[in-house]
Amino acid sequence: MLDLPRTLAGYGRLRSPDTTETLSRRLTRRNKILPDLDAALSACELKDGDTISFHHHLRNGDGVLNAVMEAVARRGLRGIHVAATSIFPVHAPLVEHIRNGTVRRISANFISGPVGEAVSAGALEEPVILRTHGGRARALDQGELKVDVAFVAAPAADELGNISGRIGRAACGTMGYPLCDVEVAARVVAVTDSLMPFPCGPVDIAQDKVDHVVVVGSIGDPGGISSGTTRPAEDQLGLAIGETAAAVIAASGFLEDGFAFQTGAGSISLATAAAVGREMARRGITGSFAAGGITGFHVDMLEAGLFRNLMDVQCFDQAAVRSYRDDARHLSMSAGVYAAPHIGGAVVDRIDTVVLGAAEVDLNFNVNVTTKAGGVIIGGSGGHADTAAGARMSVITTRLNAAGYAKIVPQVGTLTTPGATVDVVVTDGGIAVNPARGDLCERFRAAGLPVLSIEELGARAADAATRAVPARADGRVVAVSEYRDGSVTDVVRQIDPERL
Amino acid sequence: MLDLPRTLAGYGRLRSPDTTETLSRRLTRRNKILPDLDAALSACELKDGDTISFHHHLRNGDGVLNAVMEAVARRGLRGIHVAATSIFPVHAPLVEHIRNGTVRRISANFISGPVGEAVSAGALEEPVILRTHGGRARALDQGELKVDVAFVAAPAADELGNISGRIGRAACGTMGYPLCDVEVAARVVAVTDSLMPFPCGPVDIAQDKVDHVVVVGSIGDPGGISSGTTRPAEDQLGLAIGETAAAVIAASGFLEDGFAFQTGAGSISLATAAAVGREMARRGITGSFAAGGITGFHVDMLEAGLFRNLMDVQCFDQAAVRSYRDDARHLSMSAGVYAAPHIGGAVVDRIDTVVLGAAEVDLNFNVNVTTKAGGVIIGGSGGHADTAAGARMSVITTRLNAAGYAKIVPQVGTLTTPGATVDVVVTDGGIAVNPARGDLCERFRAAGLPVLSIEELGARAADAATRAVPARADGRVVAVSEYRDGSVTDVVRQIDPERL
Repeated sequence: MLDLPRTLAGYGRLRSPDTTETLSRRLTRRNKILPDLDAALSACELKDGDTISFHHHLRNGDGVLNAVMEAVARRGLRGIHVAATSIFPVHAPLVEHIRNGTVRRISANFISGPVGEAVSAGALEEPVILRTHGGRARALDQGELKVDVAFVAAPAADELGNISGRIGRAACGTMGYPLCDVEVAARVVAVTDSLMPFPCGPVDIAQDKVDHVVVVGSIGDPGGISSGTTRPAEDQLGLAIGETAAAVIAASGFLEDGFAFQTGAGSISLATAAAVGREMARRGITGSFAAGGITGFHVDMLEAGLFRNLMDVQCFDQAAVRSYRDDARHLSMSAGVYAAPHIGGAVVDRIDTVVLGAAEVDLNFNVNVTTKAGGVIIGGSGGHADTAAGARMSVITTRLNAAGYAKIVPQVGTLTTPGATVDVVVTDGGIAVNPARGDLCERFRAAGLPVLSIEELGARAADAATRAVPARADGRVVAVSEYRDGSVTDVVRQIDPERL
Repeated sequence: MLDLPRTLAGYGRLRSPDTTETLSRRLTRRNKILPDLDAALSACELKDGDTISFHHHLRNGDGVLNAVMEAVARRGLRGIHVAATSIFPVHAPLVEHIRNGTVRRISANFISGPVGEAVSAGALEEPVILRTHGGRARALDQGELKVDVAFVAAPAADELGNISGRIGRAACGTMGYPLCDVEVAARVVAVTDSLMPFPCGPVDIAQDKVDHVVVVGSIGDPGGISSGTTRPAEDQLGLAIGETAAAVIAASGFLEDGFAFQTGAGSISLATAAAVGREMARRGITGSFAAGGITGFHVDMLEAGLFRNLMDVQCFDQAAVRSYRDDARHLSMSAGVYAAPHIGGAVVDRIDTVVLGAAEVDLNFNVNVTTKAGGVIIGGSGGHADTAAGARMSVITTRLNAAGYAKIVPQVGTLTTPGATVDVVVTDGGIAVNPARGDLCERFRAAGLPVLSIEELGARAADAATRAVPARADGRVVAVSEYRDGSVTDVVRQIDPERL
């Protein structure tokens, strides 16, 4: 080696390269593959009280959260914080991990099924934190939610950790949620059942974000991706609400070239999208993008030329997965790009109209998508509060009544989405417009739409109800419903287990 | 708002949402566009001594570095650190910014043209830091290189900062270098001459990484992208070296199914690639990937089925740009994924054979691609040292002599790439094999290749030389050649300006 100065002004100390590296290292190709999940937990030095994160692109077909938790429990770890984007009925084994102390804390953007029931009944001592999709991205980015190990359910991966959601046995399409986790997690473990030759592309998460790769027999059931409703309503009531919502959008002034649209994947939302699509075709309008969780229904709209792009945080069915794989107009976005409130403009802030569902709406236009009548956790915001806050017009579609309960109520069981961000409520008994939106109300009346006051809708719902909405539970707090900026919209209280 | 507890055990203080947000904010769509570069410097609060970063995807056609520096100078800022990935002749105005004190420090992975000459002549008091592509990615990631404002030359962008390299007037294709800067820079400014409707896709850099967007008349001359040689050699000597290098590869044992290959974009490298391609076709071999800066030449190999994928950190010509836009097998990679030494396995670590050029090679197989005979800075490692360290076999192709000077020398003018990572030197006067690679030497001899000792090659080069290689300069240190891990391979000393 050359004779170099030891230090230099304006640079500092000079260190010589270690040229013993090279040959054996170059010929022996290390990779990131570990034999099993237990080895990954060892490599990550997971310890009691640590936070591990999961994402829900496989939805009710996910096999990774359960497999990891089984390995965690087998090691005898205690007090783990499970930071999942969403928890589904398939994650029922988590209840036992809570009961035996393996899990002490949960945070999620959506919880349905046995875990929601167990939390509601008081299984956890510490309150669950329910975030919005954008709020979780913000909490990760700002260090409020610190992740020790992020587990990525990888439909395909290679030995250095490149992950593709587009191929593999359980292809899920876009991977918008873990894209945020892998940016900040101390360690990242890709769990895959399709190990591909290097390089595994198209790359959805790049190898430099991944520390370890574990190959398992199955990451889950791809059929579970389209669990939940992802087809337009076929019943008369649902279709009628969808038609009315579409008429609202048609009369809103927003339905013009460049229209940006989001719907949920519920049956009424998709019925609305279908009717909006027909109106766009009739008017010869080309929208800019449809956003959110994406279904084959949205793909059809893209392919029909109704939108220039899809912006997709999560594919809701296999038609969407195929479209993302094959069509460059079908864009992936991270949860942060989708919905984060702190990045100076997210995709939700460019949406003209979002169509959302509700468990309950109250007379202040507040919406509950967190608990069902009686107070049991059945969901959470997901992107609900984010899109309502971002869109120029948020439309809530709901039946007036369900299961005998009124859905327009004096006060929501849990306040998920503040009424100040809810503009229009469309029901089978007419529509109500937030008094702050006089502009819209005038247009709807001019179009001959059945505009009522929210109090009138509430009265109609009450008249048709056969069961009284139970009072809000008054037990200790079992969950906190966080708004996208980290403030709190409401708390969920413990219910009497007999009310489950 | 509901009556919530003020604090909760296991959660902390509960803050109520500010529901005054909403309407005006939702209807008034803020965007990230600023009127000009000066406004961006104001918004970023750039101050004396700050570090600003640039990338070189427009190569010698880049107009952004000069435009930003002009705006910086106009503001009267002093002592700026210019952290560029590469500096080309087009960046000559930087010399004046150095002379008048606007710029006090430079770091880059490659410097050619007037700035290299000015630095060599001692224009800067503080030493320039010359890094490798992987070393710069590491330095950014590990906080050694802190960037206050990263400027991204964006071929296309939208009002929220989504950037696409695939479209626009000056489309450059992949954007592997700024992908690293935008992850860590305190502020990011996209400079574009093609403002697209939202969303601008396919997205190469996502909107959440970008703070401001400035629209300018031109970001540069797309014709400058393919500056530098990006065509196979057509001269007899170059073709012959390429044929020999290809024969070396054919005999190495690495040329089999799954072969991963990198060449530079120099004429001999591409002549080698052409000959290797013919041999692959003859043997019916399908390689896994070709990596690095990508040319139309590599695209042809992809389309001929010789490789499954291209892994592209930077497109070197418009054929590569088009391929990246249209072919999903043509993958983008960040500089970190490409070459970083600290991520547990980069793409360079999966390369079987890399073919590289040299200004000089010495008897210890050390390579200089930093200075020309006489000591003036004409380049730097770029990916040279990274790929040599990663590949199973690194092949240096060089003429024995150029401009009358020997290119195989007793000691390199500047040590860029340590000889311990250099396996084979292929010249027009025969090949030399690093003694550490007895395995290769045997194979080459068995294949009838003209294997000599490096000393014999050196003697032949000396015999044919008409000019003596000047002694290493002995002035003060003007540049430090950093290895990929942050150690120092060599320093560059000030030369007598008359030797320029």
